[in-house]
Amino acid sequence: MERDFTTDKNAPIGVFDSGVGGLTVVREIMRQIPGEDIVYFGDTARVPYGSKSKATVIRYSRQIVNFLRTKQVKAIVIACNTASAQALDVIEAEQDIPVLGVIGAGARMAAQVTKNNRIGVIATRGTIDSGVYEQLLHELNPRFQVFGKACPLFVPLVEEGLTHDFITEEIARRYVKDLQYKDIDTLILGCTHYPLLRTLLRKVMGPGVTLVNPAYETAIELRQLLTDRGLARDEHPDGQADYRFYVSDLADQFQEFAASILPYDIHQTEQIDIEAYGALREEAGEGSHDPEGKY
Amino acid sequence: MERDFTTDKNAPIGVFDSGVGGLTVVREIMRQIPGEDIVYFGDTARVPYGSKSKATVIRYSRQIVNFLRTKQVKAIVIACNTASAQALDVIEAEQDIPVLGVIGAGARMAAQVTKNNRIGVIATRGTIDSGVYEQLLHELNPRFQVFGKACPLFVPLVEEGLTHDFITEEIARRYVKDLQYKDIDTLILGCTHYPLLRTLLRKVMGPGVTLVNPAYETAIELRQLLTDRGLARDEHPDGQADYRFYVSDLADQFQEFAASILPYDIHQTEQIDIEAYGALREEAGEGSHDPEGKY
Repeated sequence: MERDFTTDKNAPIGVFDSGVGGLTVVREIMRQIPGEDIVYFGDTARVPYGSKSKATVIRYSRQIVNFLRTKQVKAIVIACNTASAQALDVIEAEQDIPVLGVIGAGARMAAQVTKNNRIGVIATRGTIDSGVYEQLLHELNPRFQVFGKACPLFVPLVEEGLTHDFITEEIARRYVKDLQYKDIDTLILGCTHYPLLRTLLRKVMGPGVTLVNPAYETAIELRQLLTDRGLARDEHPDGQADYRFYVSDLADQFQEFAASILPYDIHQTEQIDIEAYGALREEAGEGSHDPEGKY
Repeated sequence: MERDFTTDKNAPIGVFDSGVGGLTVVREIMRQIPGEDIVYFGDTARVPYGSKSKATVIRYSRQIVNFLRTKQVKAIVIACNTASAQALDVIEAEQDIPVLGVIGAGARMAAQVTKNNRIGVIATRGTIDSGVYEQLLHELNPRFQVFGKACPLFVPLVEEGLTHDFITEEIARRYVKDLQYKDIDTLILGCTHYPLLRTLLRKVMGPGVTLVNPAYETAIELRQLLTDRGLARDEHPDGQADYRFYVSDLADQFQEFAASILPYDIHQTEQIDIEAYGALREEAGEGSHDPEGKY
């Protein structure tokens, strides 16, 4: 029996990230649109994406989208700044369902809050080198001056639990020093781990700089998009949305991290072989056949 | 024309690592056995291995060995502590050429230099959790007491160029504090990046602790093995060994890092699709057919 993906409003939302960081986006979706079902994929075997080339990030993103389509998702959120920067255009062009990235939402919010038109962006090297935030912000307003800074140590520091440590603060001070000289009044947290450093960054940046969290804005945009297209879900009979989590490695460790940042308990995380979804588009066209069956 | 891999002493040595770190092993091989040709593979698309499961590390290592066999190598060096810890046994059992890991060499050297039988190991979480150094050291001498410590921030700190920074020193002091309480007299640098922190670690540990660099010992063991098996190379007619480098991503960036630590210039690094070597063993048996041709 064929199912029409594009108009089934009771289908889940697909969300993916290079690892655990995208859970900060899932958390916002759970808060802003509590009735929607979610299928999450974290590419924990191949994390991080920030240091990979554009071609590789596109290849990996395609595999993940192929996988999510086998779960009949009605929309896809790329909850990874690097993948949004490198692969959103390509994925969007190839898919017949809505695809959102975290970058657009973050840029639009920053454009709203800046008063002096001087905006800073902190992110992984991949996101900064892509220049994508700068490009989007200039499309919104050519007068914006955008200053980017790669912060490769923030993710490992967060994953070591040093979110409130003086070492992280010292590293943060070095990273943002140039941005402070530039007199920015708005700072985009351009990597999904960074909202977990919000308290520390607020202290380092001082009260004159507004921090923008793209995860929050993405959830708001997703809610609007679902409403506009008549894709908002009917209420669940039991009032309980369905959340499913898949990873490419280390399901237990993922579940532990998830438990520490999500408002709901995760009962099960399944590990899948994501590389098996590589040739799916060419082979099976519509992505409705599940290669997992082969293994 | 069929070639016999196992007895061609003029064939190259295959060396692989999860990324750039294994170049510290290549550097030692170049110094200790200057006549040997080397084919290096760095899995720069999927680095780091330290946070991946055993099953994933084995799968990736098999793909890489399949690739190296297409280059007719006469021996393989696993220049990655995590892969040596997780995959050496499996790879060795499957191959008909010698396979060396960095861990055995490091453990044997530590066993020789310790006087109080108290040995520390610093490494990635994967290597420490595997308990492999402890196991090997106990096989050498059951009276050894082995104390491990995972240091996940060292690799990103080295890759940020902070090898002589007070931040790295502060983090190092925290990491090794427990080992110092244990009164160790020998410390194994159980990750290929760590020799680049040797000066700093020597200062933090003090003169009472001997640092063991497994890369150095691995090159010595390889030289001995090649001599014992009659596999040492004939002299090159032009006196110049042949070094070839392959990566799964970001060849330019790899080449830059390589230039900073190797005694020779690298003229070319080629990017290959390592995932294409996944099913090779089952499909093609001997690994003599190159799947690159398909793409």
